[in-house]
Amino acid sequence: MKKLRIGLIGAGRIGKLHGENLANSVAEADLAAVADPLMNEEIRAWAADLGIASCYEDAQKIIEDPEIDAVFICSSTNTHADLIKQAASAGKHIFCEKPIDTDLAKIREALDAAESAGVKLQVGFVRRFDHNHKAVRDTVAAGTLGAPHIVKVTSRDPDHQPMEYIATSGGIFMDMTIHDFDMVRYLAGSEVTEVTAYGAALSGAGYDEYNDIDTAIVMMKFENGALGVIDNSRAAHYGYDQRTEVHCDRGCVQVANDLNNTAMISSADGVSVAKPTWFFLERYNDAFIAEAKAFAQAVLNDTPVPVTGFDGLQPVKIAMAANLSLEENRPVRLSEIEA
Amino acid sequence: MKKLRIGLIGAGRIGKLHGENLANSVAEADLAAVADPLMNEEIRAWAADLGIASCYEDAQKIIEDPEIDAVFICSSTNTHADLIKQAASAGKHIFCEKPIDTDLAKIREALDAAESAGVKLQVGFVRRFDHNHKAVRDTVAAGTLGAPHIVKVTSRDPDHQPMEYIATSGGIFMDMTIHDFDMVRYLAGSEVTEVTAYGAALSGAGYDEYNDIDTAIVMMKFENGALGVIDNSRAAHYGYDQRTEVHCDRGCVQVANDLNNTAMISSADGVSVAKPTWFFLERYNDAFIAEAKAFAQAVLNDTPVPVTGFDGLQPVKIAMAANLSLEENRPVRLSEIEA
Amino acid sequence: MKKLRIGLIGAGRIGKLHGENLANSVAEADLAAVADPLMNEEIRAWAADLGIASCYEDAQKIIEDPEIDAVFICSSTNTHADLIKQAASAGKHIFCEKPIDTDLAKIREALDAAESAGVKLQVGFVRRFDHNHKAVRDTVAAGTLGAPHIVKVTSRDPDHQPMEYIATSGGIFMDMTIHDFDMVRYLAGSEVTEVTAYGAALSGAGYDEYNDIDTAIVMMKFENGALGVIDNSRAAHYGYDQRTEVHCDRGCVQVANDLNNTAMISSADGVSVAKPTWFFLERYNDAFIAEAKAFAQAVLNDTPVPVTGFDGLQPVKIAMAANLSLEENRPVRLSEIEA
Amino acid sequence: MKKLRIGLIGAGRIGKLHGENLANSVAEADLAAVADPLMNEEIRAWAADLGIASCYEDAQKIIEDPEIDAVFICSSTNTHADLIKQAASAGKHIFCEKPIDTDLAKIREALDAAESAGVKLQVGFVRRFDHNHKAVRDTVAAGTLGAPHIVKVTSRDPDHQPMEYIATSGGIFMDMTIHDFDMVRYLAGSEVTEVTAYGAALSGAGYDEYNDIDTAIVMMKFENGALGVIDNSRAAHYGYDQRTEVHCDRGCVQVANDLNNTAMISSADGVSVAKPTWFFLERYNDAFIAEAKAFAQAVLNDTPVPVTGFDGLQPVKIAMAANLSLEENRPVRLSEIEA
Repeated sequence: MKKLRIGLIGAGRIGKLHGENLANSVAEADLAAVADPLMNEEIRAWAADLGIASCYEDAQKIIEDPEIDAVFICSSTNTHADLIKQAASAGKHIFCEKPIDTDLAKIREALDAAESAGVKLQVGFVRRFDHNHKAVRDTVAAGTLGAPHIVKVTSRDPDHQPMEYIATSGGIFMDMTIHDFDMVRYLAGSEVTEVTAYGAALSGAGYDEYNDIDTAIVMMKFENGALGVIDNSRAAHYGYDQRTEVHCDRGCVQVANDLNNTAMISSADGVSVAKPTWFFLERYNDAFIAEAKAFAQAVLNDTPVPVTGFDGLQPVKIAMAANLSLEENRPVRLSEIEA
Repeated sequence: MKKLRIGLIGAGRIGKLHGENLANSVAEADLAAVADPLMNEEIRAWAADLGIASCYEDAQKIIEDPEIDAVFICSSTNTHADLIKQAASAGKHIFCEKPIDTDLAKIREALDAAESAGVKLQVGFVRRFDHNHKAVRDTVAAGTLGAPHIVKVTSRDPDHQPMEYIATSGGIFMDMTIHDFDMVRYLAGSEVTEVTAYGAALSGAGYDEYNDIDTAIVMMKFENGALGVIDNSRAAHYGYDQRTEVHCDRGCVQVANDLNNTAMISSADGVSVAKPTWFFLERYNDAFIAEAKAFAQAVLNDTPVPVTGFDGLQPVKIAMAANLSLEENRPVRLSEIEA
Repeated sequence: MKKLRIGLIGAGRIGKLHGENLANSVAEADLAAVADPLMNEEIRAWAADLGIASCYEDAQKIIEDPEIDAVFICSSTNTHADLIKQAASAGKHIFCEKPIDTDLAKIREALDAAESAGVKLQVGFVRRFDHNHKAVRDTVAAGTLGAPHIVKVTSRDPDHQPMEYIATSGGIFMDMTIHDFDMVRYLAGSEVTEVTAYGAALSGAGYDEYNDIDTAIVMMKFENGALGVIDNSRAAHYGYDQRTEVHCDRGCVQVANDLNNTAMISSADGVSVAKPTWFFLERYNDAFIAEAKAFAQAVLNDTPVPVTGFDGLQPVKIAMAANLSLEENRPVRLSEIEA
Repeated sequence: MKKLRIGLIGAGRIGKLHGENLANSVAEADLAAVADPLMNEEIRAWAADLGIASCYEDAQKIIEDPEIDAVFICSSTNTHADLIKQAASAGKHIFCEKPIDTDLAKIREALDAAESAGVKLQVGFVRRFDHNHKAVRDTVAAGTLGAPHIVKVTSRDPDHQPMEYIATSGGIFMDMTIHDFDMVRYLAGSEVTEVTAYGAALSGAGYDEYNDIDTAIVMMKFENGALGVIDNSRAAHYGYDQRTEVHCDRGCVQVANDLNNTAMISSADGVSVAKPTWFFLERYNDAFIAEAKAFAQAVLNDTPVPVTGFDGLQPVKIAMAANLSLEENRPVRLSEIEA
């Protein structure tokens, strides 16, 4: 089998996750190199264990390597756009973790660079590869239920992030809801045209000190006429609550959470069942593998990537609109975000 | 057992439903009379079968009967407020179907009349007596999950009403969502302070010809800080979709639909389960009985009714705010509706 | 509507249950009289409340009453066979609670009497009218899944009966499993030809003192080639566990328990759901009504009753075979029970 | 991390499955060599892809290699016992696929050899490592529900094996139910003392031509007093039906199947949900990894293996007893199998 030779840029939590999947579970990939500005013995040992031949501090070593076909950009967000431009210039295909950037102009420059260079660019909205959400999307797309009318996403993290993280996260809509903004576009098969956001800091964990919120509901309108709603909490406590639903003209498709197991324990004290899986490492583990395989196959077969640069741009715009809506307590059209 | 002697005013669909429950399933009640301006042989036979002693065309016969303790007002909406005032004057306790009226001033007059007369007035928000929604409410009220953060209601009718009905229904918010506006107050244990409504006519059934919609999402804020959302459809097609959920500070309680049975049929062709119960007669049958028993017991024991006149007033105000929000595409404070 | 005039014989727990259903919820029935050898003020008040015109000590008063069309025999088991014979002689149609008797010869005499008299005889296996088990049966009978291969019944009572009851109950197979023996015939659509029974007294509640057991598994073979298994416990503790399943040539149909509600409560402590309904009054309430309606309709329309005298005989024979199997620790053919 | 150097013996379907898990997903293992009498280019390429250094035709090369710590025996069943003896003599720790053999004397010799040599021997009953069945076992073992009373296993393969396979399979009890015989011991925490087996060839696929059956129910008694039952089908058609349940003195724990996803699709046509996962590759994938990790950890930490040689012996004896029971249509004590 012809394999895609891949260089990994960034060996933090998400970089290592992708690296292990590429090395162990993606038969189409050959993970040849890893670069991280904080390269150290621990990363070198990790790389050796996975059979990665080369370790660098400087990502340019990967970008300049003629043996490398593609890069996985898993470095900090503020480096994504520049790395995309450099990799594109060097003719590398690109997988980039979300978000590309939080500045629309920078995102557009990166997208233009990839397009001009004729390289593929896939953005890391992993939930599209989850067996549950994909079943919802596939059902809607099949059309047997008719046009979508109501798109619903419940997305709650299991527990609070550290407040130091919150301080620089960019706010709930850009940091957390951005996945849901991608999801509603994916499920509706249509673009968001307007949002109204309600939010509050209800947990007492201190989000308001950072002008942030821990609880949100966002309504939206889509080009195809459908309406949508997302509800978020930073701390569900019972696990990772990831439910989606689309009500269509002739019926409804909805998914429940994946649970740790299917056990039901019944006694005089009551009946208990298992909790949902705890967080994205448990819930989206298989989706991360499917995502990487899909990228490798798109490059090897020269077919379109399943999540495009445009798909990376739109949720950022929706998050900006949601921020403005929350600030001014009014519906905000996506067209207001263009300037 | 001392029984409450009841006169039924109105023998249409909902009146007959209450009449049969009072006669057959509410041991605390003695259904003594029925009045309907269209009194005929069919109603007389129905009454005879239930052991109802007296049949009248004129509701005044019931109101003036010294043997009658209480009335069930199940006549057309535009007669509710006047009948409440008359029954109150005659010292009858009152159960009145929702809505009391669609005019706030008339509702207030009726409420004042009942209060002045010192009679009990219960309004027919039957869903509060449903085993599922009550379990949500009881869990929230118990406080073990902490304060409510997100209140969610999905409420979809099984199929379109005739367009002649829609023409005079008062619109989706006043006709259908009004039950959900009561439900969110009940679940949150707090008053709605603001709503934003999105709506559309997507089914092609002709709601737009009556300036009405068939699909809606309404967000709301509560006095206690919680946020809420309702989604509605006039035609779910698979049955009566009645789900509620409250996410609280330390966890979540949610209910699924009641199904026709628990059968699961598995074959190479797939796995099927039973549909939800079709509509309110199937889904809320037990709740209607519980509602009537609760009224009878409140009167007999002189305890507070579980759904007050004020509970009848508030959802009308929220529906008015939702209408204004939809019309002007902006958040509307409940305080704007007072004037 | 023409109504069936019914006399109720026996006003104990099950008699009152049928009486209330006939009076309140079976429009085809007119409950005209009740007889109980222990007739007293409490029963008379109960009857008055239901509008029952006549109360007797002596069941013969009902049997001799030319105005009575049919009797409900709800007296103690040892009176059933004689009452059937007397009622049949008087030309009354008969609903008889299970079991008809525990003596095969007496059962046959009763069946012969009803047949000779040309009256209808329905036996009270109420579970056939349950929405869940009926869905299993209907699916099997429809034939789309092919011939039945494996028939499974789980049947566990919520808690121990008093030991005084156990002392004279006739043993678990005749007292409790007899319902399941009827159920497997109903589901398989075929007769049991052989059983092997395993049993034990494991609860420590004292069943072994009465030569009885509290836990049982019974395997069986059917005429149509299918195999079956029933598992029983006298004390499930979490509620009434009533599950059935048939695996067929091309797939499987199974039902879960009815629960008190559909609530799911999730928190860091775990996820809990509602318990099954507690016992037969809650679980089979609607089935008792459907059973009585089915009898009334069969008589009024002169169509076959859904549960025949033969259906009353067979489970007694299976219970006898199971007792013999347990005693001798060997498979027992039903043909051994004929003598 | 210190790693266990492993040699894989047998590169058929199950050998490759273990090989890929050891190479990719068991951090504690270093898969150093593979041997297969049919070694060819396809296996060499597979091995190269996984980074396996050495490929042999002769398993002795692995057994004699002083660098190898442990072997995975995945060759044909008739070679297991000899390979265990040889590997034990060479001081290798041993993971052996089930069954060790179908001859009790040979199994005992192999077990003795491993014990004498002081090497660890783990047998491949992978289902013990499944998240669902493990949850049942853990709940029972925790003791909060009290002693087990009823142990139930439903185990149905998705579809028929080729009849050539059936011809030499050893029969359903030795080939398929053997997993369930292990499971009931695991769940009950007690030894089987007696079985009664019912079986039939109902599918029309031709099992009877090989004196085999496609449908079975087996009842059993346990040393601790509990009763048990297994039901089997060779062809469920809807997927791999793998459910277990233990009813205990104070309650019940049960597990449902893993489904392909949690989607529920509702329309006027009905409500459908996803099928169970198709077969063991999908259902027990994670369990195979957990099994291999458990073996590696037991060796590295010198702790007891979770599935012993004795655990490999007992199910073979139970299968023999079931065969005898089916043949003679009588209960068979395990003690009869000793001779």
